Amino acid sequence: MARINEHFLKLKAGYLFPEIGRRVAKFCAENPDADVIRLGIGDVTEPLPPAIVEAMHRAVDDMARRETFRGYGPEQGYDFLREAIASGDYQDRGLDVSPDEVFVSDGSKCDTGGILDIFGAANVVAITDPVYPVYVDTNVMAGHTGEVDDDGRYEDLVYLPVTAENGFVPALPSEHVDLIYLCYPNNPTGTVATRQTLRTWVDYARREDAIILFDAAYEAYIRDEGIPHSIYEIEGARDVAIEFRSFSKSAGFTGVRCAATIVPRTLTGLTPCGRRHSIHALWHRRHSTKFNGVSYVVQRGAQAAYSPAGREQIRGLIDFYMENARLLREGLRQVGITVHGGRNAPYVWLKTPGGLGSWEFFDRLLERAHLVGTPGSGFGASGEGYFRLSAFNSRENIEQAVDRFQRAME
Amino acid sequence: MARINEHFLKLKAGYLFPEIGRRVAKFCAENPDADVIRLGIGDVTEPLPPAIVEAMHRAVDDMARRETFRGYGPEQGYDFLREAIASGDYQDRGLDVSPDEVFVSDGSKCDTGGILDIFGAANVVAITDPVYPVYVDTNVMAGHTGEVDDDGRYEDLVYLPVTAENGFVPALPSEHVDLIYLCYPNNPTGTVATRQTLRTWVDYARREDAIILFDAAYEAYIRDEGIPHSIYEIEGARDVAIEFRSFSKSAGFTGVRCAATIVPRTLTGLTPCGRRHSIHALWHRRHSTKFNGVSYVVQRGAQAAYSPAGREQIRGLIDFYMENARLLREGLRQVGITVHGGRNAPYVWLKTPGGLGSWEFFDRLLERAHLVGTPGSGFGASGEGYFRLSAFNSRENIEQAVDRFQRAME
Repeated sequence: MARINEHFLKLKAGYLFPEIGRRVAKFCAENPDADVIRLGIGDVTEPLPPAIVEAMHRAVDDMARRETFRGYGPEQGYDFLREAIASGDYQDRGLDVSPDEVFVSDGSKCDTGGILDIFGAANVVAITDPVYPVYVDTNVMAGHTGEVDDDGRYEDLVYLPVTAENGFVPALPSEHVDLIYLCYPNNPTGTVATRQTLRTWVDYARREDAIILFDAAYEAYIRDEGIPHSIYEIEGARDVAIEFRSFSKSAGFTGVRCAATIVPRTLTGLTPCGRRHSIHALWHRRHSTKFNGVSYVVQRGAQAAYSPAGREQIRGLIDFYMENARLLREGLRQVGITVHGGRNAPYVWLKTPGGLGSWEFFDRLLERAHLVGTPGSGFGASGEGYFRLSAFNSRENIEQAVDRFQRAME
Repeated sequence: MARINEHFLKLKAGYLFPEIGRRVAKFCAENPDADVIRLGIGDVTEPLPPAIVEAMHRAVDDMARRETFRGYGPEQGYDFLREAIASGDYQDRGLDVSPDEVFVSDGSKCDTGGILDIFGAANVVAITDPVYPVYVDTNVMAGHTGEVDDDGRYEDLVYLPVTAENGFVPALPSEHVDLIYLCYPNNPTGTVATRQTLRTWVDYARREDAIILFDAAYEAYIRDEGIPHSIYEIEGARDVAIEFRSFSKSAGFTGVRCAATIVPRTLTGLTPCGRRHSIHALWHRRHSTKFNGVSYVVQRGAQAAYSPAGREQIRGLIDFYMENARLLREGLRQVGITVHGGRNAPYVWLKTPGGLGSWEFFDRLLERAHLVGTPGSGFGASGEGYFRLSAFNSRENIEQAVDRFQRAME
């Protein structure tokens, strides 16, 4: 009698994006002539930077010759990439991260899910609300929660609301928590954390002996001086934080697949006997046993993101998307919409007008303007009454989207 | 107090291959002039087939143009690859596997570990002994076992010995088990399962309501007519078996990373209330939530493995490695070594001469012949007194390895 993991049965039926897909497919079937513009899923649209394309071609050629062919690589990533990440993203900014603290993987989604393997079931887990659904669902699957309520909140998770009322700054939990997911620049709200906010969290984690799971997938979009790009800019963070980095939204790797997770050697957790144990050693073992490294061709592409040409081309990509974000933000404000985010992140988070529910607004925008966005409530109960638009699209589509949005609001 | 997953503490200190690496590094440091030939890790050495190289170059070019650029792909794999696998590996051989039962992933190691996510902790798990260590270690990490004993056996796992005494055919368990790992052609022993053996297992699983996790990573090496390439060649297997396929050892993808897991829609497991639940639905949800698809470039490469040119080039690769295996097998027999495997698999499994322990033989072969193999005991207690040699190497190295082996035995 093979038994299933019954915790899967607690998951709400649909992951957010499949539900959006169903509604859009239905609309398109009923309106075959409608030219629908999709600003829903946060997926890049522009081609890979030429420096990366060249590096990938060279790597494919390496695989075509016996002398340069590569079989199994190190599970943790090739040194050439671990070194490029450690110096390019950290050491050059004065931060203390060594190459052997960099674990290369095929995606932050995989790592933010997989990281739970190394933590025990007894931890109290906190997430902000709204939040990237993967943090929640992977905890549900791992049996860390009870059942879900009508608002979509799972028992035993600690929810930290982030809304306009608190300026999108989550309050510290009123109870003790052991693991805290933070994502800055934030998906879905597009807001950022100041140095002071992060310091508050690092201090909390040090005081409570908690671990912060810091998702910095959108760090490349930070424009404002003084906003931290890494949790390790905060003193003491090396003792309490794991950081997730991704090439998806910077180098446009959503279809190429490469990310990195930083696990400082100074980070520890407790055994049942109360002894301290290296988290780095656990993740190293997990990575070695349940993962077999990222494609060599992909790692060579990621390495090229740190070349002078690669950097410049990526800067161009991000400038492009951020101009889209500005057009969205300002276009929406012109018709009286309250808009958050979109200054240091590729997401615009708007308050639905007229007190409409998130899904009501979704349907109305699809019907009236043929625009697809993401209902805020899909990211959590505190996202109700909000709506996310993504700046990942062509300039032409963004301009047309703004125009259609404005007409629909008139 | 962030707690760690205490089950990790049960893992034996070193994964097999790191321990080999340490001993070889020590030997090389002490003998800097020794020309060591490595027949340890089962890693391919020949370059990618040209048809695959071309397809990957084209795919990189797709990523360089806006019109053909691909962002996030379907987590389960692109239809073009799922269809190629379903028809090329199954339907063309008269087997009933549909494209939506094919889950493309970045490796069988990842999937044989990840599959445990969807099964409950209450299952009794059986493995053959010796065995690919990942099956064991991932069960230990998931908390499915007790502590390890001095022979390396974990409490609560059911071990099914496969040795010369039983002709390398595992006996059915004497107790009820819920999940059974089978790997054919077998790693590490290089032996195969007849149709009759597999039928016995499928019948057992149907009778006991168990699920077989069938690892067919080496199926392309089968030479003998009548040996099943897939568990689904056995009637009724669709109700009781998941099959793992890999491009690693066929198309030489150990550094490229692509595999596929077949989960039939007819396969079910039990909920705690005793209701049947689709395993396909669970794996689909797991894949969607904890994985983000395989690199587009890699999937295009894997697709090319099914083109006429790709097939022919892969056949050439496998012929090459199998000739290596024949040379090893016959060369060892000439000096009186008892050899198993190597006929339908790229591994030769030899009985250590003179009753030597596996690690003793390892050290002796390294010292006397500068050859690296894998101690059988590293794969499990019943592997003690055996030794694995891999046929993955250049012809020149294999010929020299045979020569050195023969001299060392004299």
